[in-house]
Amino acid sequence: MPTILGQNQYGKAENRVVRITRDGGTHHIKDLNVSVALSGDMDDVHYSGSNAHVLPTDTTKNTVYAFAKEHGIESAEQFGIHLARHFVTSQEPIRQARIRVEEYAWERIETSEGTAGPVGADRPRHSFVRKGQETRVSQISYDGATWQVISGLKDLVVMNSTDSEFWGYAKDTYTTLQEAYDRILATQVSARWRYGWSSDDERMPDWEQSYEQARTHLLQAFAETYSLSLQQTLFQMGSRIIDNRDEIDEIRFSLPNKHHFLVDLEPFGLKNDNEVYFAADRPYGLIEATVLRDGKEPRIPLDMTTL
Amino acid sequence: MPTILGQNQYGKAENRVVRITRDGGTHHIKDLNVSVALSGDMDDVHYSGSNAHVLPTDTTKNTVYAFAKEHGIESAEQFGIHLARHFVTSQEPIRQARIRVEEYAWERIETSEGTAGPVGADRPRHSFVRKGQETRVSQISYDGATWQVISGLKDLVVMNSTDSEFWGYAKDTYTTLQEAYDRILATQVSARWRYGWSSDDERMPDWEQSYEQARTHLLQAFAETYSLSLQQTLFQMGSRIIDNRDEIDEIRFSLPNKHHFLVDLEPFGLKNDNEVYFAADRPYGLIEATVLRDGKEPRIPLDMTTL
Amino acid sequence: MPTILGQNQYGKAENRVVRITRDGGTHHIKDLNVSVALSGDMDDVHYSGSNAHVLPTDTTKNTVYAFAKEHGIESAEQFGIHLARHFVTSQEPIRQARIRVEEYAWERIETSEGTAGPVGADRPRHSFVRKGQETRVSQISYDGATWQVISGLKDLVVMNSTDSEFWGYAKDTYTTLQEAYDRILATQVSARWRYGWSSDDERMPDWEQSYEQARTHLLQAFAETYSLSLQQTLFQMGSRIIDNRDEIDEIRFSLPNKHHFLVDLEPFGLKNDNEVYFAADRPYGLIEATVLRDGKEPRIPLDMTTL
Amino acid sequence: MPTILGQNQYGKAENRVVRITRDGGTHHIKDLNVSVALSGDMDDVHYSGSNAHVLPTDTTKNTVYAFAKEHGIESAEQFGIHLARHFVTSQEPIRQARIRVEEYAWERIETSEGTAGPVGADRPRHSFVRKGQETRVSQISYDGATWQVISGLKDLVVMNSTDSEFWGYAKDTYTTLQEAYDRILATQVSARWRYGWSSDDERMPDWEQSYEQARTHLLQAFAETYSLSLQQTLFQMGSRIIDNRDEIDEIRFSLPNKHHFLVDLEPFGLKNDNEVYFAADRPYGLIEATVLRDGKEPRIPLDMTTL
Repeated sequence: MPTILGQNQYGKAENRVVRITRDGGTHHIKDLNVSVALSGDMDDVHYSGSNAHVLPTDTTKNTVYAFAKEHGIESAEQFGIHLARHFVTSQEPIRQARIRVEEYAWERIETSEGTAGPVGADRPRHSFVRKGQETRVSQISYDGATWQVISGLKDLVVMNSTDSEFWGYAKDTYTTLQEAYDRILATQVSARWRYGWSSDDERMPDWEQSYEQARTHLLQAFAETYSLSLQQTLFQMGSRIIDNRDEIDEIRFSLPNKHHFLVDLEPFGLKNDNEVYFAADRPYGLIEATVLRDGKEPRIPLDMTTL
Repeated sequence: MPTILGQNQYGKAENRVVRITRDGGTHHIKDLNVSVALSGDMDDVHYSGSNAHVLPTDTTKNTVYAFAKEHGIESAEQFGIHLARHFVTSQEPIRQARIRVEEYAWERIETSEGTAGPVGADRPRHSFVRKGQETRVSQISYDGATWQVISGLKDLVVMNSTDSEFWGYAKDTYTTLQEAYDRILATQVSARWRYGWSSDDERMPDWEQSYEQARTHLLQAFAETYSLSLQQTLFQMGSRIIDNRDEIDEIRFSLPNKHHFLVDLEPFGLKNDNEVYFAADRPYGLIEATVLRDGKEPRIPLDMTTL
Repeated sequence: MPTILGQNQYGKAENRVVRITRDGGTHHIKDLNVSVALSGDMDDVHYSGSNAHVLPTDTTKNTVYAFAKEHGIESAEQFGIHLARHFVTSQEPIRQARIRVEEYAWERIETSEGTAGPVGADRPRHSFVRKGQETRVSQISYDGATWQVISGLKDLVVMNSTDSEFWGYAKDTYTTLQEAYDRILATQVSARWRYGWSSDDERMPDWEQSYEQARTHLLQAFAETYSLSLQQTLFQMGSRIIDNRDEIDEIRFSLPNKHHFLVDLEPFGLKNDNEVYFAADRPYGLIEATVLRDGKEPRIPLDMTTL
Repeated sequence: MPTILGQNQYGKAENRVVRITRDGGTHHIKDLNVSVALSGDMDDVHYSGSNAHVLPTDTTKNTVYAFAKEHGIESAEQFGIHLARHFVTSQEPIRQARIRVEEYAWERIETSEGTAGPVGADRPRHSFVRKGQETRVSQISYDGATWQVISGLKDLVVMNSTDSEFWGYAKDTYTTLQEAYDRILATQVSARWRYGWSSDDERMPDWEQSYEQARTHLLQAFAETYSLSLQQTLFQMGSRIIDNRDEIDEIRFSLPNKHHFLVDLEPFGLKNDNEVYFAADRPYGLIEATVLRDGKEPRIPLDMTTL
């Protein structure tokens, strides 16, 4: 046979699970979108259609919901670890599991009586509004021996209204761009960071705290960098995280340059003193790079930040 | 001729304008998407293609950007009022203008030194992250004499994890639904409220404050209503706004019932005590209604909340 | 009570139903997205939460699927008529039903042996590829006495690469646009046409044939009109349908002017002889109008074509 | 310094270029979305913000439009090859270029006089309707010595309404799925195939013909395979292409199983004899695999089909 099977994987994608935890009248939410991908000894199902080694994708869906009850959802990462371990250890033909998770954040609605202060017996604490900012993401992979956890975020839109320049670039026949000494710098951050943790023998990071800290460092580096190029800002965001978070070895960014063009108001006898901008959609500059701890291997796939 | 022209309008849609205002080192953003629709004496352009009465849509775009400089953007409503007045009063054939605006909110990025407290000379105050929650919307209409302002919001996702029931409903041959005595109630609020203000002789509302207050009442009514139906919650949200905000006469909602189905875990020997839910996409219940101040006429078009 | 209830409606939206009909080994598909909206004596459910008059949205969903079996799906319009009649006549509190339908077209996959010619016993005739062009839409309304059917299409993208001009327009302070004597004219057609049929006593149109014919006239009018403005093209498309289809009394269009800007290649020493265009996204001109048969009342809501 | 730079690339993404070619009164369209990504000696711009090696993304955009004039657009692949060669050979610091292209197909509008038969002098041949089915995609990579071309398609939705089964699968504690002996099989094909062509010394494939043929084989294999699993269908589609197209060495698929669930009509006293289905959105099974010519190396990145 001249044709052979290469890498393959299967599972149920986009299982939307919401887990409510009650602490008296105070409720807590975890709101996830979980995708399961399994691989292993799966030649037969491709060649002959025999499903003997195939745990149905419907079963992987059921497992997501059952595990939300059995293990709870402490964090996206911990939940993915429970799932990946289960699939690899419980079904002989399955040799590798990859769990991808999106998490949507919610915050409490302040009621008329307020939400600050001690919680009284009758105070409603079960009302939420979706935060709607970035989506938190995580990918947990396991082959029965080694773990790989890559977490991050996407769709976090940021802007500096000054402290950005762009000049001194290469020019060729097709160059018409004017140099800029004070421009808006805006981007929609997609970032993925890889944890050094890889074995059950090592101490697991505090996934929730690590996420919050990485996000804060990223935002602060964006705000505090006087930028000569979006590449420079990217590197500052990455190195700030690597420098401050020992548990993270590598981070990759895709940063679309969300162009804000200064509108030419001269035809109308007006001076545009960096006040009025046209926010463009397409095309956009796209800046992508990996930043990593010296001595570590890069392992985040190049396109992961554009998924 | 057996065929005639009915209502018609034209203009440039989705002009994305960002206006930066500088207060020393502290910058402020207004980020709008502005759509212009003009109508009037426009038969010829439809019948013969004569453009003599047609101010180009490109010109309406230019006007948006020029006005962002000339008038600034105090609020979406005030900006729309400037534009509508201009088109109706400056071009004879144009008899009516309708400006639609979407507004995207931004919040400041807290830098390492913090953003609270008094602002020092060197503290960066030009860094923002897009809030990403609801989109604020407004429609301003003017015919040279009367103003109509309809404002509101869309894509505000809210959830009560308890205090919602659904039972006692009508049943027919096709009814299989089980009654529910404790369910999740979640919806993605689309609301439009109409202001009573209609003439230059009346005192204009404080658009920014009115929006913030209407939004707060809406959220609090959602959180504080023990719900026997989404219709009941809708009416509570509407009447709370009408009761508290004299400047608003009418409000219309479209509330998709974002179903969260309790997952049946019994096949796995587990009890689901209102803990694990499947968040469904389609189909969804859709509850729509107008709530209005007694004695006022309803004027918000039925489909406006589904745009 | 200072606050009262206005127009209201409810039902299950976006029921995705696929109906397969078998004619021996030859299968036929109807693929619909059906949304139900019911109104009537519904004050109580809004004021007190009593659901006694409320047929659950879940029941309306079940009815869609049951009717796909009981009545089949001859056309989107006929299916909507069955549903609307049922809800209004079977539940006393329900006085009005509005059914909205989207229909997705499929075409057969040609197999190796071909699909033309007589169908042999073993020829597979159950394989389809989604056509993916326009979405056909319909809205059927019934109040127990009178029918209103508004059908149409959306997302039909068309382009003339020449035979379009734009000049002789009004100019003001903010006008910078250059006149154009040979430009690309492209738009994404959204059209809704209203049928004169309104009573069970009248002969019903052939909905399938009427759709195909209206679509053909619309496309041909677009192709055959030498255009001095998009408004002129719009009127030609509408009047062509009104002139040729007696069953249609009114048609409304929303036509975004999908701008294709001639790229300035002079800085690179190249002449752009109407060859290279930049296809822009936003902003876009938006041309909307109703065309109707003389003597008929316009009844299509203004925003219906922007849904 | 503890932090270093890893793989990086930059360029202008999503340049929408439309190229019209005139053959007398007969016009032809190419409608592309072109994304440029360049890499090379770019450490400085990340570390210090020096742009000396950076050809602006704006220049890469200009080059796309200028090349559409200078070279025309014979095919997406050929156009990408022109661009990639230019960037790598004309700017010393740029060592590698990757061009990604999406192509949107158009077909002619039949005018009243028809489009078949010989073209007369006055027959309009410049009117088009967007086909709207799959999007054709291509990625062209060049490092100054070796070419890699990966082409394919996405969003091609196909369905078999019978000749699909699913049974005999593995079962565990969480398995509840019933076996199916006659089900709908539907998927939205995303496929990428890699060409063996890698050097200017080899004869280039006929890109247009190869695409049409690969697409036809894929569709026919889908239609003609009696399927015991979506994996089996996937392998048949892949091997059909490998077997018939010598120029293609490898193909990868992502096939979401677009579930069509048979609706249970028994509660309504109706029998559903494979007639009425609910088309579900999420979750969905996701089947992914690479099929390759024996002896060839797999090089298509795993996530490329989910972009």
